[in-house]
Amino acid sequence: MPLFFEAAAAGGVPIIKALREAFVANHIRSMHGIINGTSNYILTRMTQAKLGFEEALKEAQAAGYAEADPTLDINGWDAAHKAIILASLAYGFWVNAADIHVEGIQNVTAADIEFAEKLGYKIKLLAVIKSDESCTENCPVEVRVHPTLVPESHVLASVNGVFNAIAVHGDVVGETLFYGRGAGQDATASAVISDLAEAAVALEIPRPNFGFVPHGLYGKCKPICEVITPYYLRLSVVDRPGVLALITGILSEERIGISSVIQPEAHEEEIVPLVLMLHTASQAQMDSAVSKIGALECVKRPPQVLRVETFS
Amino acid sequence: MPLFFEAAAAGGVPIIKALREAFVANHIRSMHGIINGTSNYILTRMTQAKLGFEEALKEAQAAGYAEADPTLDINGWDAAHKAIILASLAYGFWVNAADIHVEGIQNVTAADIEFAEKLGYKIKLLAVIKSDESCTENCPVEVRVHPTLVPESHVLASVNGVFNAIAVHGDVVGETLFYGRGAGQDATASAVISDLAEAAVALEIPRPNFGFVPHGLYGKCKPICEVITPYYLRLSVVDRPGVLALITGILSEERIGISSVIQPEAHEEEIVPLVLMLHTASQAQMDSAVSKIGALECVKRPPQVLRVETFS
Repeated sequence: MPLFFEAAAAGGVPIIKALREAFVANHIRSMHGIINGTSNYILTRMTQAKLGFEEALKEAQAAGYAEADPTLDINGWDAAHKAIILASLAYGFWVNAADIHVEGIQNVTAADIEFAEKLGYKIKLLAVIKSDESCTENCPVEVRVHPTLVPESHVLASVNGVFNAIAVHGDVVGETLFYGRGAGQDATASAVISDLAEAAVALEIPRPNFGFVPHGLYGKCKPICEVITPYYLRLSVVDRPGVLALITGILSEERIGISSVIQPEAHEEEIVPLVLMLHTASQAQMDSAVSKIGALECVKRPPQVLRVETFS
Repeated sequence: MPLFFEAAAAGGVPIIKALREAFVANHIRSMHGIINGTSNYILTRMTQAKLGFEEALKEAQAAGYAEADPTLDINGWDAAHKAIILASLAYGFWVNAADIHVEGIQNVTAADIEFAEKLGYKIKLLAVIKSDESCTENCPVEVRVHPTLVPESHVLASVNGVFNAIAVHGDVVGETLFYGRGAGQDATASAVISDLAEAAVALEIPRPNFGFVPHGLYGKCKPICEVITPYYLRLSVVDRPGVLALITGILSEERIGISSVIQPEAHEEEIVPLVLMLHTASQAQMDSAVSKIGALECVKRPPQVLRVETFS
């Protein structure tokens, strides 16, 4: 018997049907999804009402958008479970949860959201699923979930509140986007009832499980240390001459280029923020640079490192 | 045998599958679609590069986005044909082309686009399909295609170039949106190949034509004279005292409220634009008001009348 699970990712948005049926002609180059409504609600409220994380989480709980125990929403694993389903449908092998990279939104601060806005970005919890275009077969697939700086001009930056959206780039169809409610009893019911209708047809007239992922197919995920993205780096540094030179020196040693620097005017505070937008680097390069930078005497708190998605 | 026609509306965007299968649980409250890429390209270029209509059309033809004879794109009928398909799938009866209201973009001017922007709107060729919520059965359906002022904050205002997008509001699923390429050989191929895959399954294992619209079902379209929307009215008037009083007097007689007025500073020109944003009115009310206003001695050119969509 076929198995139907449309409500398992993005609620009422028929993304599973799209991947199983509508896009059969396509090799999926990438998917970028906002697929956890709770974390999107929290980030939206932090952005629009300038709330802190804890305050926004409490509001989400009061509004019934977050569970009493919101752990899986906040730590990225609810989005990761859905990303695993979407990646498995797109690439035809079951992705192992242990092979993907997952970060939640619990460490995103109001300061990060404000600096991101100054730089022309919104911070979103993004599921990113990508395969290398140049690689034709058995190509490792990137599957990762993390808070991400999304350029304001991209439509995903405008997806607010509890809404979900998934941008799917197929090699034949090009750019597409699906948007709607990812949770709530009604949106979920819409998906479940469409599954029931298909199951009813399948009961009367057995049909093959069109677009289902067979078990045992070969495929693998790209290790996160090889994933290359631009980065946002926010440091808390002592306000004195020479600090920027020390930090840029370390980045230069690791061959990481800098695209912009924000160093707000110090108002007689001893510790000031320093924000750097970095060109593409591997996680391995970043880990090495950040550990050296974090060990500097002039760097007073653990560095904040967020990935940037350019959609290029 | 089932009939498959996914490429018939919105090219690579699986909107037909969504209506036939994914949204079976829903009564469709409304659809708002940008479903003609050529006219969207022209309006986008008029907006972004401040081109005139003729200039933008020539550019679209040079870029291969418009046919040598672009009549059906420009006069709204290509979008209307697709709106008929979408409305028929949503409401279960075949909509008659003679019963719907269709206007093209040929009379939209650079001035309209500029005034719309000042007022917080983009002008889009929109297919609007709507059923009255309060009416439960045999409710007349609105089907209309016309250049429309779309609030900048709505995601459809950001759909640019040859891209298509359809916002579908279902009573169960809530707001959804589908976005992608509406034309071009690749996007069309993606849709056709998905149809071929379904047809291949249907050949081996006959299945009923799930979600197909049976002929002969009862249904009717709401006459356009009964359709109620807000309006944008641009007049070319003689620059002298008392003109605004005359015009607002006529609107008041027809019980049409005014939400804002733009009367740019006159620079010693005799004929100046006067733009009024009007509260909701029926087409019948507007026709009557516009014919009286157009007959005024102080109104020097035929009034420009465009509908506004509020998505409320």
